[in-house]
Amino acid sequence: MGTVVGGASALAIAEVRLTPVLVADPPLLNTQGVHQPYTPRLVIEVVTADGTTGVGETYGDTCYLDLARPLARALPGRSVTDLNGLFTLAESVCGEPDGVSESVDSGGLRGVRTADKLRLSVVSGFEVACLDALGKALGLPVHALLGGRVRYRVEYGGYLFYRWAEHPVSGAPLDDWGAALDPEGIVAQARRLAADFGFTSFKLKGGVFPPDQEIAAVRALARAFPGHPLRLDPNGAWSVETARYVAGQLAGVLEYLEDPTSGTAGMARLARCAGMPLATNMCVTTFAEIPEAFTKGAVQVVLCDHHYWGGLRRTRELAAVCRAFGVGLAMHSNTHLGISLAAMTHVAATLPNLDHACDSHYPWLTEDVITARHTFQGGRLTVGDAPGLGVELDRTALEALHWRWLDDDGTLRDRDDTAAMRRADPAWATPAVPRW
Amino acid sequence: MGTVVGGASALAIAEVRLTPVLVADPPLLNTQGVHQPYTPRLVIEVVTADGTTGVGETYGDTCYLDLARPLARALPGRSVTDLNGLFTLAESVCGEPDGVSESVDSGGLRGVRTADKLRLSVVSGFEVACLDALGKALGLPVHALLGGRVRYRVEYGGYLFYRWAEHPVSGAPLDDWGAALDPEGIVAQARRLAADFGFTSFKLKGGVFPPDQEIAAVRALARAFPGHPLRLDPNGAWSVETARYVAGQLAGVLEYLEDPTSGTAGMARLARCAGMPLATNMCVTTFAEIPEAFTKGAVQVVLCDHHYWGGLRRTRELAAVCRAFGVGLAMHSNTHLGISLAAMTHVAATLPNLDHACDSHYPWLTEDVITARHTFQGGRLTVGDAPGLGVELDRTALEALHWRWLDDDGTLRDRDDTAAMRRADPAWATPAVPRW
Repeated sequence: MGTVVGGASALAIAEVRLTPVLVADPPLLNTQGVHQPYTPRLVIEVVTADGTTGVGETYGDTCYLDLARPLARALPGRSVTDLNGLFTLAESVCGEPDGVSESVDSGGLRGVRTADKLRLSVVSGFEVACLDALGKALGLPVHALLGGRVRYRVEYGGYLFYRWAEHPVSGAPLDDWGAALDPEGIVAQARRLAADFGFTSFKLKGGVFPPDQEIAAVRALARAFPGHPLRLDPNGAWSVETARYVAGQLAGVLEYLEDPTSGTAGMARLARCAGMPLATNMCVTTFAEIPEAFTKGAVQVVLCDHHYWGGLRRTRELAAVCRAFGVGLAMHSNTHLGISLAAMTHVAATLPNLDHACDSHYPWLTEDVITARHTFQGGRLTVGDAPGLGVELDRTALEALHWRWLDDDGTLRDRDDTAAMRRADPAWATPAVPRW
Repeated sequence: MGTVVGGASALAIAEVRLTPVLVADPPLLNTQGVHQPYTPRLVIEVVTADGTTGVGETYGDTCYLDLARPLARALPGRSVTDLNGLFTLAESVCGEPDGVSESVDSGGLRGVRTADKLRLSVVSGFEVACLDALGKALGLPVHALLGGRVRYRVEYGGYLFYRWAEHPVSGAPLDDWGAALDPEGIVAQARRLAADFGFTSFKLKGGVFPPDQEIAAVRALARAFPGHPLRLDPNGAWSVETARYVAGQLAGVLEYLEDPTSGTAGMARLARCAGMPLATNMCVTTFAEIPEAFTKGAVQVVLCDHHYWGGLRRTRELAAVCRAFGVGLAMHSNTHLGISLAAMTHVAATLPNLDHACDSHYPWLTEDVITARHTFQGGRLTVGDAPGLGVELDRTALEALHWRWLDDDGTLRDRDDTAAMRRADPAWATPAVPRW
């Protein structure tokens, strides 16, 4: 444990590089506020003794960086194959991040933030980097290191957001998507996502407007895309009663309702009367949260996210638990770059019980740190056979985004959608839950 | 899916060899009867395009062979990395074995026998052979292919059996262990196992004699080995009431009580009053059986067995489910050769939550198909760094045991402990459950 496997010293980690970056992000709205003009991500490089470099990516906020640095220092000398050992190593070296315990993650919308969750998110980036390095060293794609793909193409859905045309601050990045603040705007956004990327299912990030407005948007989508799978995700913004009302209004229209209300108890209460499956990436984001949720029947679909669960192999374990309990599986996304999209696609390709199109913010991002951006065809990404993740770092782009992080005065290094919203509305405060 | 990964055609399977063998087995007693003089096993060899041979092992009864043959024919051309695909491949090509559905496995004592269970046992042997070949081809030990060991040595317990000195038929293999049919015999057996192999915990296979005799044997063990972990496993032979009585008698003496009664409902009833953890390798042997057992609190320890669960990677998934639900993990054994012991040791080394010493019948076997038999030191096996499983086929030995299988007139090719017992006691019938 902790040493290099015999006869494989080429797989020993010689160096680890951490590069925090700030990535342009559109003014997408959610129940807590609006995305900042730039969002922090952390790019992790693991270099083996034979010079193979593996890359991974995770959240880049200060609290993640504080945990990533000691883990990076502890890795050299260990093998990139020593993935089970990453968890105990992280527990022993990372320590507790400052002021995090039991606070709520305003940016990630992943429920209560704990030191355990932060640490697993950090480990996930290192695990992906190790798998990429291992795959490259062995000449095998990451999916083969996970037992092999069970599908050649992974389906993604169009991720719809209420949004403004521009950020409420000067000098912010611009795009040509325009505002989407009503049913017509959402339908137009969906049509463009369908035309540009081929998506045939859609998820609307809700919790932004009063429920009836969002119901109207979903109904407009159903008219524009009859028979296509649709989802609505208000990030737990509704009371059980409100959620029940929305579910009743959208029966037969939604594929599932995602985190309509906060907390396992409320989800369980709602599940008994919702008349449709409930999905979550908020009340079940760690293995410790599974028993209560599954035994109470609180969720019918778990949205996996390798950044939450501790990497691609833990994501496969989550899939196994869902399979055993007859709970469906989909995939969650936060803002991410092409490294993580490759990782998401590789693991998704190996999950026999991935029952739904995956989420991805990727179409909203115009910047990346890889040389060739991923291309959706028919809403799908092909699972390649190139060694490792099959992506290559664009060092010029990486350096430019890192300089943006270095030049930042600290205001953007920690994603805070509530603070970003205050730039437009000085009276804005984190909404009480339930908001409606 | 089903094809060879790019740039890795050396990992394509070129040939699969199946070699059924009969292995000498002592007259060990259990609640259904006695072990036959020889037990069937199947040795699986997977040969890749570059000539690397991987070995696996599983049950060798006719019903397993019938499923293994079509799977062996379907494998060539696929990659040894395509492990997730083995399950759907097996489902599509194996078909249903004859006369197996819902019958009870008299030899394996693994509860109700279903076609699914048989197929998973067959897949497990192929999965191990593929992992062995992959490890050899890449220069990596199997534990590294499973994410790396979290311990260097795996602890096994001494597996105690009531037994006769000799089989009740002429020409059967002999050993020098003598009979063990009372507390003194069991303690003597434990002392020899401790002296020869260094075991410091012990499990008694019960369900052979009336409970008070087995309680006396466990108490004698506790006096002879004060403070050492002890277990008793009657293979579901007791009623809930009898099991409750035994649990009361052995409170504070047993580490856990294994399958004291048959069925999840009875185990759940007993668990509420047993006063000690209940373990199983009978009522939870597939993922489908987990939800009821875990939500009812029927078992506190699951004995994993890669032959049951579909291989080493599925065993890791079972471990993940147990970890999520706070259920303990131990390891089960049926009669097996050194290939499977290597596989058991590799996967055990990677399981952070393996809380108890593993079971193994290995000390009872004098024959093997590998060149260097495993050596327990202090009751433990060291997890090696040799490529693959780290074992080498002894082709002379394999051929000799295969000839024994070829020469058999069919009476021993299907393990049947009840039939073996009838050789000594013509009136013996499969005991009704509960027996006491």
